[in-house]
Amino acid sequence: MKAFQDFYQDEVSHCYGCGRLNEHGHQIKSYWDGEEAICVYQPQQYHQAIPGFVYGGLIASIIDCHSTGTAAAAAYRAAGREMGTQPYFRYVTASLHVDYLRPTPINAALKVIAKVEKISGRKAVVSSLVVVGDVETARGEVTVVQMPDEWLTLSNSS
Amino acid sequence: MKAFQDFYQDEVSHCYGCGRLNEHGHQIKSYWDGEEAICVYQPQQYHQAIPGFVYGGLIASIIDCHSTGTAAAAAYRAAGREMGTQPYFRYVTASLHVDYLRPTPINAALKVIAKVEKISGRKAVVSSLVVVGDVETARGEVTVVQMPDEWLTLSNSS
Repeated sequence: MKAFQDFYQDEVSHCYGCGRLNEHGHQIKSYWDGEEAICVYQPQQYHQAIPGFVYGGLIASIIDCHSTGTAAAAAYRAAGREMGTQPYFRYVTASLHVDYLRPTPINAALKVIAKVEKISGRKAVVSSLVVVGDVETARGEVTVVQMPDEWLTLSNSS
Repeated sequence: MKAFQDFYQDEVSHCYGCGRLNEHGHQIKSYWDGEEAICVYQPQQYHQAIPGFVYGGLIASIIDCHSTGTAAAAAYRAAGREMGTQPYFRYVTASLHVDYLRPTPINAALKVIAKVEKISGRKAVVSSLVVVGDVETARGEVTVVQMPDEWLTLSNSS
């Protein structure tokens, strides 16, 4: 099954968080699970904040890319079109909010469960939970906006 | 001049964002500039969101660690003590909010300017601006809380 990010066109698939063509990046992957979207990520030991626990900036990063991806997938779904078809739906982040409820253990995969709260015009709001096993460790709320059309054809030669 | 992070004790200096002992991490550095604290960071090309512009998750990460560091430095300053002296002041993030005002260019160093808005009890609020040259590209607000004492002596053997 292809992840949402696998449908992004090559020119904009170098994101440090989710670009499948960025060999230095996190390459997160998002998938539908009913009305929610799931991202599972196994941090490395060096992704720690303090020993045993995941760095909050990594959690914010995963929430960020998972939310923009979920918004894109939801826009395609709402339009009744297959992901990756033109005109493209891609989103960038306008604002990112994360509440860290408790430390996130680093030795197990974390799961981010995202849900589109609303889409109106070029804007969407995506909420998310971060869980490890049964324990909720963080919550995210991300406001995203559709990427300007001219960005969709940027070359990666910079 | 030593950065705030250079005063953190070894046991908790492996943070992916700011740990001086994490060779895979961003190793951000924060310094006083009057009442504000400054962090200057030169992203790599692979830290992109889209070609030419910095990944928002990296910006959130720098804001995060710069804010916890600034809160620690401010707590020491308020106590009239030199940074790194015991009992330690170290902060972790309770909530992180970033507004992305415009794309942040990747080819120049970005600067994060942080200010402690308030410290009360074990909690503090730190606001920040991200600028590249004269252009403000993002704003942060981070609520931090003092790290539990037992975390300060965690070993890094996990």
